[in-house]
Amino acid sequence: MSKTAYSALCARHVRMYRLSHLHSIASWDQSANMPAKGNEARSLALAEMGGLLHQLATEAELKGLLDAAAQEDLDDVERANLREMQRAWRASNALPQSLVEAKSLANSRCEHAWRSQRPANDWSGYVENLREVVRLAREEARCLSAVTGLAPYDALMDQYEPGMRSAEVDRVFGDLRQWLPGLIRDVLEKQSRETVLRPVPPFAQAAQKALGHDAMQLMGFDFEAGRLDESAHPFCGGVPEDVRMTTRYREDDFLPSLMGTIHETGHGRYEQNLRRDWLGLPIANARSMGLHESQSLSFEMQLGSHPGFAGLLRPLVVRHLGDQPAFEVGNLNRLLTRVKPGYIRVDADEVTYPAHVILRYEIERPLIEGQIEVEDIPALWDAKMQELLGLDTRGNFSDGPMQDVHWGAGLFGYFPCYTLGAMYAAQFFAAMRRETPDLDARIAAGDLASVFDWLRSRIWNEGSRWETPELVRRASGEALNPAHFQAHLRARYLG
Amino acid sequence: MSKTAYSALCARHVRMYRLSHLHSIASWDQSANMPAKGNEARSLALAEMGGLLHQLATEAELKGLLDAAAQEDLDDVERANLREMQRAWRASNALPQSLVEAKSLANSRCEHAWRSQRPANDWSGYVENLREVVRLAREEARCLSAVTGLAPYDALMDQYEPGMRSAEVDRVFGDLRQWLPGLIRDVLEKQSRETVLRPVPPFAQAAQKALGHDAMQLMGFDFEAGRLDESAHPFCGGVPEDVRMTTRYREDDFLPSLMGTIHETGHGRYEQNLRRDWLGLPIANARSMGLHESQSLSFEMQLGSHPGFAGLLRPLVVRHLGDQPAFEVGNLNRLLTRVKPGYIRVDADEVTYPAHVILRYEIERPLIEGQIEVEDIPALWDAKMQELLGLDTRGNFSDGPMQDVHWGAGLFGYFPCYTLGAMYAAQFFAAMRRETPDLDARIAAGDLASVFDWLRSRIWNEGSRWETPELVRRASGEALNPAHFQAHLRARYLG
Repeated sequence: MSKTAYSALCARHVRMYRLSHLHSIASWDQSANMPAKGNEARSLALAEMGGLLHQLATEAELKGLLDAAAQEDLDDVERANLREMQRAWRASNALPQSLVEAKSLANSRCEHAWRSQRPANDWSGYVENLREVVRLAREEARCLSAVTGLAPYDALMDQYEPGMRSAEVDRVFGDLRQWLPGLIRDVLEKQSRETVLRPVPPFAQAAQKALGHDAMQLMGFDFEAGRLDESAHPFCGGVPEDVRMTTRYREDDFLPSLMGTIHETGHGRYEQNLRRDWLGLPIANARSMGLHESQSLSFEMQLGSHPGFAGLLRPLVVRHLGDQPAFEVGNLNRLLTRVKPGYIRVDADEVTYPAHVILRYEIERPLIEGQIEVEDIPALWDAKMQELLGLDTRGNFSDGPMQDVHWGAGLFGYFPCYTLGAMYAAQFFAAMRRETPDLDARIAAGDLASVFDWLRSRIWNEGSRWETPELVRRASGEALNPAHFQAHLRARYLG
Repeated sequence: MSKTAYSALCARHVRMYRLSHLHSIASWDQSANMPAKGNEARSLALAEMGGLLHQLATEAELKGLLDAAAQEDLDDVERANLREMQRAWRASNALPQSLVEAKSLANSRCEHAWRSQRPANDWSGYVENLREVVRLAREEARCLSAVTGLAPYDALMDQYEPGMRSAEVDRVFGDLRQWLPGLIRDVLEKQSRETVLRPVPPFAQAAQKALGHDAMQLMGFDFEAGRLDESAHPFCGGVPEDVRMTTRYREDDFLPSLMGTIHETGHGRYEQNLRRDWLGLPIANARSMGLHESQSLSFEMQLGSHPGFAGLLRPLVVRHLGDQPAFEVGNLNRLLTRVKPGYIRVDADEVTYPAHVILRYEIERPLIEGQIEVEDIPALWDAKMQELLGLDTRGNFSDGPMQDVHWGAGLFGYFPCYTLGAMYAAQFFAAMRRETPDLDARIAAGDLASVFDWLRSRIWNEGSRWETPELVRRASGEALNPAHFQAHLRARYLG
């Protein structure tokens, strides 16, 4: 039996994949390289390409091909690929092309202005652009809701974490809210009795850059298939064949950049290890944003704050920054596991991090659902920071609602993925330990291959072969179970 | 009377302009940033986009719109824009899409491999790829010849220098061949009596980079609308709104990179000063490659080796490289006007440069016309280098036919533009001196505005408003007259 329709679909997806390659590289360049006056033309170019890709994804013949392919004699992998093509088609067809283009333009403008508004703490300037971004995100949520039958916020979140619903997030985050404040208190109390030497600055940017490269090498990043550059907000972009990671440097502290780099390396290796023979087809794609985050957190937290990791990091730190008492292994480990409520999500330790996510979830959901407006954000932010982390953030917009690129870039429904990812990561490491009882000794000895091999075979190489619950079950032997995350935090921080 | 067809054409050209923006940035990135394993995917992506742009440029409805627009009530500027649209349409329709895609792929592969083959002096590896590039260029020449009625090589050259024919090039280069060898001899004889101190290396890359930035600033480059990076072969890419220049550094000599940077800055400012209100339409484009080269040579040679320029450069050189006897103004001027037959075209002085171009012209023309094959290139190269510059190049492919990116990238018919550009530049400066008799004193005093203002109003802002001969006549008061080039060289090097 022929597979004519399926083959035609594959050819179209490969074409879209190639064109979106240019969009990805130009987007990365916009954040990492582009001078100010280039932005208008770049935004128009990206919007034009966004519109073109949307047009290709919604061509009328696709529906017929998808229906015909469903009747063809496909093997399991082809069928999974077809399932992802159908999913992509549904998502694309929910949005009119004019909305896709307007979104791209508004997001790009808002994000670009944010780059100078954030250092200026210019909330009122930012909110002018953000209002339009939110208006279009609500419109997007309505469109997606209409075709999926989901609530507007759930419809947005489903794009990043397919199958996840706010009812489930409420349940999991509700559970977290119960034990997290107490856990934070206990950890702070325990750590208040420990002596920690702070590294003495300054740390030259060039030295930090070289250190970051060595850390990426330790974590297995392939520099023949990717780069590390700088941008205002660190991210992992580019394409699977050429991963473009970014970081930013502070001369007064090297740890945020170092651990941020290790975090992005987790994203980068996931992309670098997607199956080459599937590349260009939807089945090759990373499974979801929560799964993606589980990989960056496996690198940054499961490994990065592992008691054995400081011993691996110390020689690299000393090589590039010189030695000082703070770089003694035990102290380095204490630095890497320091828990301290702070303003900045991306700099947060893994214990307080979920509080940042809960806060954003509790603001963006009513914002999308129209219960609050952009002007209401600062007051809510201040109240929740006080409630969850005991911090006063009034008037500090730069380190408050302007700290993240997400909302300005039109990404709503994304934030929960960070904490779902932390839970997946804890569950995966629990599974690894059952299979490899001496895993912790191996990590401490610098044998990270056991971890990387497990992740490669269970997660990276699987791409979008399985839907998320099935992937998690096959990888770890059970469905998502947040108990592993709680056990992980208790063992590491109170053990 | 309505302008419906004309407006529809403009909208289509703006769309192509935006999409080609992404192609330009991704191409620049391929040379300046991309790691090795990214090349296959990038080449496929660029080929896909090249094919798409070709498809848009050859859509069937365009012919009808072009014919209808010709009947509409257009003003002079609109009519000039329409003329350029018609020219673009003729050029695009001469080539089948399969050829455009095959060319993009073959050129991209050849250029990428060249980056490692050149340092390895691997001619036989290079020739494997070059053979396919030449085969496709011949095919391209045949297609263009069929629609224009021009000879195959002329049809290729017409893409870069519209209206220029090899008969005319033969005439001009024949003239050059008469007086150039004697002039080179006389200059070498004169300079042999001068004492020149060589700058003492090493020159750290970071210091050279900072020096290059300051030189670009001196030459009026707008860093809010462009960047300077590194690549194996320096070029000026990107888009008019965001010009991407590249250079390369040698620690043993800073002048090649510095003067190369000043050269590319001429290209860059031409692009940066194209009329903003026309951008996106063909009339906004830089007029021709010869005109483009006239701008880079106005910067590098007319200004860069001007007797007053060393005084402007000295403070920048001293600031970044420290002082040394060789940086004394008189000596710096001698360094900047040193004439020495050498292997490398891009490092050549303005007196010997035309010899490099004549050599390439005399090889690429028979190569395209099928009188010689790629295997014949080295012997011809060696013979002509001996004849024109008295140099033995046998066995040295890296500094011989592998030194340029052009042939590997499928650019045949381009080389003559360099020397046409040198002639245009000499003619423009002769015109400036007639209008501003104290021009040389102004340059020596650091008042470069007189030069830049002239170039901006006569060349940069005119875009493709006029065809080349008309632009040259309006700018300089006469048709292309190579006597200005000879007079310039005699005055500067034998005066």
